[in-house]
Amino acid sequence: MTTTTMPALDDNDAHALEARRLGIHTQQEMLVFMRTDCPVCRSEGLSARSQVRIKSAKQEIIATLYPVSADFLGIHDVGLSEAAWRGLEVADGDTLTVRHAESAESLGKVRHRIYGHRLDREAFGQIMSDIVAGRFSDVHLAAFVTACASVPLDERETTDLTRVMVDVGERLSWPGSPIVDKHSVGGLPGNRTTPIVVAIVASHGLIMPKTSSRAITSPAGTADTMETMAPVNLDLAAIRRVVEQESGCIVWGGSVRLSPADDILIRIERALEIDTEGQLIASVLSKKIAAGATHLVLDIPVGPTAKVRSNEAAMALSGRLVEVGNTFGLSTRVSISDGRQPIGRGIGPALEARDVLAVLQGISGAPLDLRDRACTLAGVLLELGGRARSGEGKGVAEQTIADGRAWAKFQRICEAQGGMRVPGVSSHRHPLVASQSGIVADIDNRKLSKLAKLAGAPEAKAAGVEMHVRLGDAVTQSEPLCTVHAESKGELQYALDYAALYDEIFQVEPS
Amino acid sequence: MTTTTMPALDDNDAHALEARRLGIHTQQEMLVFMRTDCPVCRSEGLSARSQVRIKSAKQEIIATLYPVSADFLGIHDVGLSEAAWRGLEVADGDTLTVRHAESAESLGKVRHRIYGHRLDREAFGQIMSDIVAGRFSDVHLAAFVTACASVPLDERETTDLTRVMVDVGERLSWPGSPIVDKHSVGGLPGNRTTPIVVAIVASHGLIMPKTSSRAITSPAGTADTMETMAPVNLDLAAIRRVVEQESGCIVWGGSVRLSPADDILIRIERALEIDTEGQLIASVLSKKIAAGATHLVLDIPVGPTAKVRSNEAAMALSGRLVEVGNTFGLSTRVSISDGRQPIGRGIGPALEARDVLAVLQGISGAPLDLRDRACTLAGVLLELGGRARSGEGKGVAEQTIADGRAWAKFQRICEAQGGMRVPGVSSHRHPLVASQSGIVADIDNRKLSKLAKLAGAPEAKAAGVEMHVRLGDAVTQSEPLCTVHAESKGELQYALDYAALYDEIFQVEPS
Repeated sequence: MTTTTMPALDDNDAHALEARRLGIHTQQEMLVFMRTDCPVCRSEGLSARSQVRIKSAKQEIIATLYPVSADFLGIHDVGLSEAAWRGLEVADGDTLTVRHAESAESLGKVRHRIYGHRLDREAFGQIMSDIVAGRFSDVHLAAFVTACASVPLDERETTDLTRVMVDVGERLSWPGSPIVDKHSVGGLPGNRTTPIVVAIVASHGLIMPKTSSRAITSPAGTADTMETMAPVNLDLAAIRRVVEQESGCIVWGGSVRLSPADDILIRIERALEIDTEGQLIASVLSKKIAAGATHLVLDIPVGPTAKVRSNEAAMALSGRLVEVGNTFGLSTRVSISDGRQPIGRGIGPALEARDVLAVLQGISGAPLDLRDRACTLAGVLLELGGRARSGEGKGVAEQTIADGRAWAKFQRICEAQGGMRVPGVSSHRHPLVASQSGIVADIDNRKLSKLAKLAGAPEAKAAGVEMHVRLGDAVTQSEPLCTVHAESKGELQYALDYAALYDEIFQVEPS
Repeated sequence: MTTTTMPALDDNDAHALEARRLGIHTQQEMLVFMRTDCPVCRSEGLSARSQVRIKSAKQEIIATLYPVSADFLGIHDVGLSEAAWRGLEVADGDTLTVRHAESAESLGKVRHRIYGHRLDREAFGQIMSDIVAGRFSDVHLAAFVTACASVPLDERETTDLTRVMVDVGERLSWPGSPIVDKHSVGGLPGNRTTPIVVAIVASHGLIMPKTSSRAITSPAGTADTMETMAPVNLDLAAIRRVVEQESGCIVWGGSVRLSPADDILIRIERALEIDTEGQLIASVLSKKIAAGATHLVLDIPVGPTAKVRSNEAAMALSGRLVEVGNTFGLSTRVSISDGRQPIGRGIGPALEARDVLAVLQGISGAPLDLRDRACTLAGVLLELGGRARSGEGKGVAEQTIADGRAWAKFQRICEAQGGMRVPGVSSHRHPLVASQSGIVADIDNRKLSKLAKLAGAPEAKAAGVEMHVRLGDAVTQSEPLCTVHAESKGELQYALDYAALYDEIFQVEPS
């Protein structure tokens, strides 16, 4: 009921500014930096941590503003974090317009959930759309994640959330069926079964278009490990070509936007170290459904320092996973396994790749636990996919390794992905030794991961930890328990400092 | 049970870097920027959004790291946001050491609360200490706030939280009693009673050492308004001097660290627009207890666009406020008032100051609603403080304005704070007019606040909105409903754009 006689400004007028790439790495967080005396900051009433809407010729993003009173930026510049730079698809000096961003409408739904009300599919859909569009700040994301943990997601909410997480991303479809997939509920260093599983099942003609993640907080993701053996940054067309040709692939999932909301929520869940059943189910299943899977095997390692800490918790989780999976026509089988210690010997991209290669090549001395676990999982898929009779899948898988078919298939997959590579070797090493003789009574997976990361993994591909002992092994004083690998002296030293501080990584008890 | 033969690095060795002030404004958020190729980033395994512990010669802080692959920083530089710069108390080029920060131990307690368990006083104490020390990221803060809203704080938790919020900050004490204080539960534009209340009660010798806040999301805080009439950035010694001399003061609370956790939590609560009873009580009372108050009047405006939206909610809130206040020996009286429309005529620092001055000076045409409300609140304090008999406080307050004592006291307080000032006047103005004749049926407080902010308030002191009508007024077509004031043409335009977009700020209904 008010009118004004003055004309409205249009976007190309007073709000036009120039893009500047600042090279600031923030993970997915969109940050912009503008001078405090920038005319747009003043006229838009922008202040520290304002949410702003930025438009380039091609794209529009929502970002958090930090005003700057210094001259590394010009008065008409908009400094962009790498994520914002990518999101806007600009070149240096391109014109941008900046405006106040209205807060995301779905925040009302988040508040609704905070106040204890259940959300319906539409509400989850609005929230996921806003999250994927970058309209949620960390504060908003953390509130959503926490609200869904404080009053846990019920069955219907879990299903609805899963569905909308699929809907906001891309969805792959493959000719024919079954399409098999595999997921490990994380937390266990060195658990690098995926390349072996893909090689085995693809040898039998099962289609397994596996997209994997890079490490976020762990010393290596499957994509990091695979990358030491072959290129993994394939676009959708290249993935299709590899799968058509070889039935399987092991690529990085980052270039296909499968359940993009999941990538954002996972970062928050990890920062909070909370991982509730409902959110875990939505996270895992949305990725698999979006990837076009029809049959799924889930590996749930159980142990005191693994993600799932008891058999009861694993059983409850697997029951719900199977049930929600069914809703989407995804036939899911769960494999609960021993998660008390790392799998294989290596922790870190190249060290884990060496284990994978040793298993596939059938080298004597290859880590038997890794081979056994990979064959168990591949066996489930062979049975699910009708390539082995019930109870015979694992045997068929073992045979596929023994007769060299899996190794041959793996090499062809690597070639199809762009050419096989030889994993690098570390330049700096130092053992951690037993301070007394006895039996290895406990191994702390979390501290081992931390040690591998401090040594440089996953950025330094050859860095990490090489295990020499397993639970129950007898060791004598001064015998090496593991070797720390690094690519620089400083990183090696830093990892060793940490080991000296936390000498409870290995518990050796007098026998 | 591991040993290493290599010597540990010490802080002055490989981790020494140089401080660089980047002039980045983040509110209280501590950010640091380091080159991706900085040797410390590599050796410490630091990556985007790592929490780091930074040490200067004087201070130690926890900050969030953004790695930078650009040359506005040197390879040995640590670029600091303004908050981090202040926290470290450094000069450009000073030596800093940077290390990985272990995550705050009290995050375990936050997770405990997320999973639905109640926290005890010790747990709240650990959380508040970590929050004040800057060990919580936004994600952690939002999780804490959300967890305490999803499963609301009970009586005991509210009391415990209030107590530890007091404990982690400074605490003022004043000779003698009563020490009176006043708080308005926010959400009502122009509700600037504080300077008037202080002037009245101080005229009667009651001690009222009032610390006020600056605007965070509103167009003006009391400190912003007061600053247009006198300096408000006083340190503790200066505050004591003013209060000793004049019995009262109206200063900015930012230079005395009263309940510093509150300042941090409030930012998160505002970003989420959640404000639960328990957190509101802890927030309000912790500030007042820390300020040394013994008697408190609370103004709770009730209206559809005010913070408290119903009389029932106001009654429930005031019951708990009084009860928890009693636990701390704080005698609290609540005044529930009409919050359906702004108080006074001005919205914005200088415009509100003009209203305050008009009331104190007894100018004809001074806003009666502001005078009435200020006298009600001052009256309660005069009664609580034994300066008026029960039921007579408001009359005494009115008399104190009428006979000029309040105005004289206010001028003396301004002089004692550093000298009286004259509020500025805007250079650009434009009216919003009624598009039809009728009765003013509704006024949206939130949209009015937004309008005032877009016009430049509170940074532009003279900017804001001047109201010409109140609820129930008859207006004719094209009659001005309010005038937008700005200090620049761009800001005026931007506010008018907003008004044109949201024409439901005023509802004029045909009579």
